[in-house]
Amino acid sequence: MSEQRESKGISKWELDTPCLVIDEEILEQNIRAMQSHAASFGKQLRPHAKTHKCSHIAKMQMEAGCTGICVAKVSEAEVLVKNGFHGVLVTSPVVTDYKIERLMECLSIDPGLTVVIDHAANATKLNEAAERRGLTLNVLVDLDPGMGRTGAPLNNGLAMGQLIDRLPWLRLRGVQCYAGHVQHISSFDERCRASLDWMKRAAEVVRQFRQGGLACDIFTGTGTGTYEIDCKIPELTDLQVGSYTMMDAEYLSIGSSQNPSHFEKFPPALTLLTTVISRNHSDFVTVDAGLKALYHHGGTPYVLHPSDLGLEYEWWGDEHGRIVLENRAKTLEIGDVLELVVSHCDPTVNLFDVLFSTRSGIVTDVWPIDMRGKCQ
Amino acid sequence: MSEQRESKGISKWELDTPCLVIDEEILEQNIRAMQSHAASFGKQLRPHAKTHKCSHIAKMQMEAGCTGICVAKVSEAEVLVKNGFHGVLVTSPVVTDYKIERLMECLSIDPGLTVVIDHAANATKLNEAAERRGLTLNVLVDLDPGMGRTGAPLNNGLAMGQLIDRLPWLRLRGVQCYAGHVQHISSFDERCRASLDWMKRAAEVVRQFRQGGLACDIFTGTGTGTYEIDCKIPELTDLQVGSYTMMDAEYLSIGSSQNPSHFEKFPPALTLLTTVISRNHSDFVTVDAGLKALYHHGGTPYVLHPSDLGLEYEWWGDEHGRIVLENRAKTLEIGDVLELVVSHCDPTVNLFDVLFSTRSGIVTDVWPIDMRGKCQ
Repeated sequence: MSEQRESKGISKWELDTPCLVIDEEILEQNIRAMQSHAASFGKQLRPHAKTHKCSHIAKMQMEAGCTGICVAKVSEAEVLVKNGFHGVLVTSPVVTDYKIERLMECLSIDPGLTVVIDHAANATKLNEAAERRGLTLNVLVDLDPGMGRTGAPLNNGLAMGQLIDRLPWLRLRGVQCYAGHVQHISSFDERCRASLDWMKRAAEVVRQFRQGGLACDIFTGTGTGTYEIDCKIPELTDLQVGSYTMMDAEYLSIGSSQNPSHFEKFPPALTLLTTVISRNHSDFVTVDAGLKALYHHGGTPYVLHPSDLGLEYEWWGDEHGRIVLENRAKTLEIGDVLELVVSHCDPTVNLFDVLFSTRSGIVTDVWPIDMRGKCQ
Repeated sequence: MSEQRESKGISKWELDTPCLVIDEEILEQNIRAMQSHAASFGKQLRPHAKTHKCSHIAKMQMEAGCTGICVAKVSEAEVLVKNGFHGVLVTSPVVTDYKIERLMECLSIDPGLTVVIDHAANATKLNEAAERRGLTLNVLVDLDPGMGRTGAPLNNGLAMGQLIDRLPWLRLRGVQCYAGHVQHISSFDERCRASLDWMKRAAEVVRQFRQGGLACDIFTGTGTGTYEIDCKIPELTDLQVGSYTMMDAEYLSIGSSQNPSHFEKFPPALTLLTTVISRNHSDFVTVDAGLKALYHHGGTPYVLHPSDLGLEYEWWGDEHGRIVLENRAKTLEIGDVLELVVSHCDPTVNLFDVLFSTRSGIVTDVWPIDMRGKCQ
């Protein structure tokens, strides 16, 4: 930790590499932009911490006005609950005895803790666990948006809600419908059609709940790829967006309402710094960031700085990357530092222990990625 | 840590998932098999810790008779040196002022520390840093096996050796030639041709060193894919193999001298346990291991247990995997635990904090992956 403290006040270009850097001004701007977008449609934000895995950023989101934080795993919820967060939502079913006990420990600290359910047997099991503790567990019915990953079939949503409503230690709060498979559809129009199709069907379940006298104050869903689209659904109450905070090459390359080939609303706040370590060729150099520093998924990282040399990153094994020089008249020297936009932010952040926050290129703080490795 | 201690003595099937498990008997068998293979050719082993990132396993390798341990990064060397290892070899150039200072700190503890050099300017810089400390740094000339990632061109190897030999604070020990790009060539015969071609050219540099009166007691190289092949090179002194300890789907699928479509010598000692968390479909279920628990690279993980259901793993986002049931007559229940062989062991191990070691399915110990995240 001493090394990290020493970094405060230095230029980001002096940091040891590879490392992850956050531009605080862009991060704040992205957090504000999504918050006011949601507010303008009368929606809440319940952003997903699985992207940044960083309590500090979750706190910034709460301070900006969001209604709660989502996590994918119980081990992530444990970190947030221990850090004083309330109303954490676990967006994936929790099914084993051991994990349910850990969930109950979280519930004993955060009475607002909420979990999704997509199977009747799981509802019964959670009800029994809550009864043993004398605690009431908030639950949402997880609805499947035609993807099949998790969620009850839509035509079974009402029955699942009725079952949960009869279980005394569970408190039905509403539904979740997250269409992960439509978030990265390149064409904005096609993404609109796909997302609205499924979200309208989920909204029909919300209406069935209300007509049937079931509590449904929450209808949560939506990712960064559909944040503009799903706000058109009146029943939707909150947005589970995550990547908008940091952004990555994968999201930046999809179309948006403003531009058919680029997602302009949220600039990249997250970048990776990497150093040239070998240069024995005229048309490429080797940098110190490979698969273990840039997660190999979701597209190719691109070079943000220097921007004028026509540089391209290519994967080159666990520890290295190749930077191809399109313009051979210029070159890079050993020791030169490059700044890249990462391919897929979520799993890349999960490779590091800290984020270096910066303002105008100066390191202002070091934020622990305290949910890093929390995959359980 | 308390959770980890409690796991000793329980069945591996009771562990919280996703998690990584080591079969200690297979690991020991793999370590012994590679050690005796090398010995039968009069070679040493200098295994690469970048695969397992675990001091405990490096210690097992040393106890089995290996001559030293390789690392890819200075931050990995720091962990080993602080744990009392001697003769650590850093297999990638160390070029920046900050990293060179860290390297010198390691050298002040481990006088046997060795680093590779592939550029004249870097040799001068390392010599100056060693002089400032009054320490002698062991170095190898890194030779490029036609891959271009790191290494001096072969026809420049002798000149680089002569340059280093003249620098008083550097002690030339020999050469490194690691052909990373041939390790996974599927055909054994083709891999033989490619590897021997480059390793013979590197051996020619070794002979030039010796004819020119340059020290060359080390010629290190070779990975798990070429361990059988490169031992035919008389000049080669040691093998930098790494993956043979744990193995993965990528290596197990290449041909070997015994079998054209399978690498039989080293069974997988490393597996991942994952739990069924959703089951609303007849032909697939959802498990709790996605991109953040199984690194998406090098092939598809395969199901080791249960082995009789014709199960296949498919990638399904950051947090989940899909298990496809070929035989729909049988099924899996929520809570069932599956055991997978991972796709690429190196970056997958780097996603976790601990390895659970087991004997006959019972957890015997918890080994910290103490070089996890050490990508600097």
